[in-house]
Amino acid sequence: MADCIFCKIISGEIPSNKVYEDENIYAFRDIEPQAPVHVVVVPKEHIESANDITAENSGIVASIFEKIPQIAKELGVSESGYRIVNNCGKDAGQTVKHLHFHILGGTEGGKLY
Amino acid sequence: MADCIFCKIISGEIPSNKVYEDENIYAFRDIEPQAPVHVVVVPKEHIESANDITAENSGIVASIFEKIPQIAKELGVSESGYRIVNNCGKDAGQTVKHLHFHILGGTEGGKLY
Repeated sequence: MADCIFCKIISGEIPSNKVYEDENIYAFRDIEPQAPVHVVVVPKEHIESANDITAENSGIVASIFEKIPQIAKELGVSESGYRIVNNCGKDAGQTVKHLHFHILGGTEGGKLY
Repeated sequence: MADCIFCKIISGEIPSNKVYEDENIYAFRDIEPQAPVHVVVVPKEHIESANDITAENSGIVASIFEKIPQIAKELGVSESGYRIVNNCGKDAGQTVKHLHFHILGGTEGGKLY
């Protein structure tokens, strides 16, 4: 997607602090961290939001959740704990229209919403 | 799991306000809602936390995310937006040791963590 900031991060057009990459997934430090550990995990495929997950593309969500335990371990929050957040749409505050999962940890979390 | 409150909800031993059920998934209203819409989605299989997702069981996460758009529509938050939250471990505040995803919406969300 030409105008998608996360597609540009994946392609390297916009620099990022990468923490994980494979054929289907890219993970990087959030530039405005809301916790001591704050990483964003995205599918390389441009899927707009959680509302657009279907039986055809849901495998990428499985892949992301398979990798999260390993990413959490590398970030040092596997044992202490972490939160995974996906914002879908306006009320939730989804700012980038490319499906992404926040991993937050390194201190105690607050409210869910 | 004999001592798991969510396994007891799934089996019907503990009553719940069900919003969705199929062969693999159960969704119900949170008894202490933190937003106007607050539903918990769980796999029927007892998986302790996000740290325990592997290539062998990740299909259930794909199934849950396939169903969330439909559940969100039925809850009336599909267009307005919603947040999906998984807490893993102590810092995040995981209280029940059975993998679960919160769906929150119906008003504007706050901080991620």
